[in-house]
Amino acid sequence: MDLSTRLTSYAARAERGIDSLLPPADTLPSRLHEAMRYSIQSGGKRLRPALVLSSAELFDPHGAAGDPLPAAVAAECIHTYSLIHDDLPCMDNDDLRRGRPTCHRAFDEATALLAGDALLTHAFVLLSQNYASKGGLGLALARDLAEAAGSKQLIGGQMLDLLNERSSAVDAAILGEIHARKTAAMIRVCLTMGAMIGGAPQGAIETLGRAGTHLGMAFQTLDDILDVTSDAATLGKTPGKDAKAGKATFVTLYGMEGAWKFARGHSDAAIELFASLPGDTSFLVELTRFLSTRCK
Amino acid sequence: MDLSTRLTSYAARAERGIDSLLPPADTLPSRLHEAMRYSIQSGGKRLRPALVLSSAELFDPHGAAGDPLPAAVAAECIHTYSLIHDDLPCMDNDDLRRGRPTCHRAFDEATALLAGDALLTHAFVLLSQNYASKGGLGLALARDLAEAAGSKQLIGGQMLDLLNERSSAVDAAILGEIHARKTAAMIRVCLTMGAMIGGAPQGAIETLGRAGTHLGMAFQTLDDILDVTSDAATLGKTPGKDAKAGKATFVTLYGMEGAWKFARGHSDAAIELFASLPGDTSFLVELTRFLSTRCK
Repeated sequence: MDLSTRLTSYAARAERGIDSLLPPADTLPSRLHEAMRYSIQSGGKRLRPALVLSSAELFDPHGAAGDPLPAAVAAECIHTYSLIHDDLPCMDNDDLRRGRPTCHRAFDEATALLAGDALLTHAFVLLSQNYASKGGLGLALARDLAEAAGSKQLIGGQMLDLLNERSSAVDAAILGEIHARKTAAMIRVCLTMGAMIGGAPQGAIETLGRAGTHLGMAFQTLDDILDVTSDAATLGKTPGKDAKAGKATFVTLYGMEGAWKFARGHSDAAIELFASLPGDTSFLVELTRFLSTRCK
Repeated sequence: MDLSTRLTSYAARAERGIDSLLPPADTLPSRLHEAMRYSIQSGGKRLRPALVLSSAELFDPHGAAGDPLPAAVAAECIHTYSLIHDDLPCMDNDDLRRGRPTCHRAFDEATALLAGDALLTHAFVLLSQNYASKGGLGLALARDLAEAAGSKQLIGGQMLDLLNERSSAVDAAILGEIHARKTAAMIRVCLTMGAMIGGAPQGAIETLGRAGTHLGMAFQTLDDILDVTSDAATLGKTPGKDAKAGKATFVTLYGMEGAWKFARGHSDAAIELFASLPGDTSFLVELTRFLSTRCK
């Protein structure tokens, strides 16, 4: 199966999982549940669920060890909540996300705030309801996801990003810290959660974690590049935001060529780590290659 | 030991737990961790931690079964996050909380938003890090707390509250739903988490849960009464908010006398359930009596 077919297949599984594992839109209070679904069912790439699902399959190709789908949906809940809150007026104040009005534009600020809170909380509902029979697995997943989404990683990265928007002294070390926390920690935990559900040995979980960090760094750098090179139609969100905000990115620090080189270094490191694992790692390797060239 | 001594003792344990179980204020990014601590270390009553601690002690007086402190702090993290987000301009737009500037007034809106997100997430870090060796206990705690804090309970209650502020058709049934979700679900889960950690039998956990719902209903009704009868110095927050917002409360629906009667009905039911349990339930009984008369 080629990369695009597998990506489509994982995304379709993720969509079905999201539809069945989120409360129905008419659950009381319906406005809240509609807003949660509006944002999570907006047709993203489902990259994080695909990483959870494919990582589990590496070690458990027939799904005998356990179903990675609830963890895949939990990761997407966290990702979506972070986008809803990032888009709010007091943060990035964005009107457009994935080609549609952002949650607070489609509903209102209070509803968007609560929908984000609810998606964050729902991630832990999903892990605790769906992995209870698996010994310590459920709690280990909850711990890793909570740490990756917490004040030292995802939320901390967002805070550093905000602080550095207001600063002219951002260098490559600080920017690396921001990307590592804001993006790479979640990419990493998607791969390690999948591996844990698939019953991977500890060494393989650690290798996937390291690969995830590199993949996340490459991915975020490419996002910075896309912000410069794309238009709104391609990007599905407002482009040129970083430049407008006078924000330092790897493009402003290293130039376009340097940013490409930096991204390439991380994607090469990720590929080498993926390829060192047993099993069919072709999806993860090809995905990393694809992500590294998606805007060329 | 009398009620006030025990309350002070539980609050002191909670303060020590908060101090040791939250990341230090100088953890990177320090502005985020300072804001988290600013809000959670603002000297609240620590009612929710006291409920967790006292409920565990009912079944495990010497703390042999397990330490309820991390769960007590997790409950306070959830409570504090909900206050920070409720105070934001797009919600209640409040300047004062516990006699001090609200988080977004002391810091800024973006920092307050992220500090709330981080406290919510930290609750699950605490449960997953501290109850891993206890079989399925940690995951059961995470499930119950996530459900109580989730889109159908705490967050759902907040959403219903907002929707009904804009409506003139609020009746006692709707107001009861709001209070049950917004306040009683969290009071309930504090009692059941403590009981689970203390090794209580299933029947006792259920009795405590029912008592918690009644206590929560009584407590929230008394909060409505206090909003009418108190001044800012006593209340530590802006009083008269409900009336100003033209908001229906049990006081506007039933009158002051009726609201008192409603609260009394729930506190009597809670006391009866507490008293039906084995062990020394005097603290929970006296606490409920105290809360029912605190503003007379």
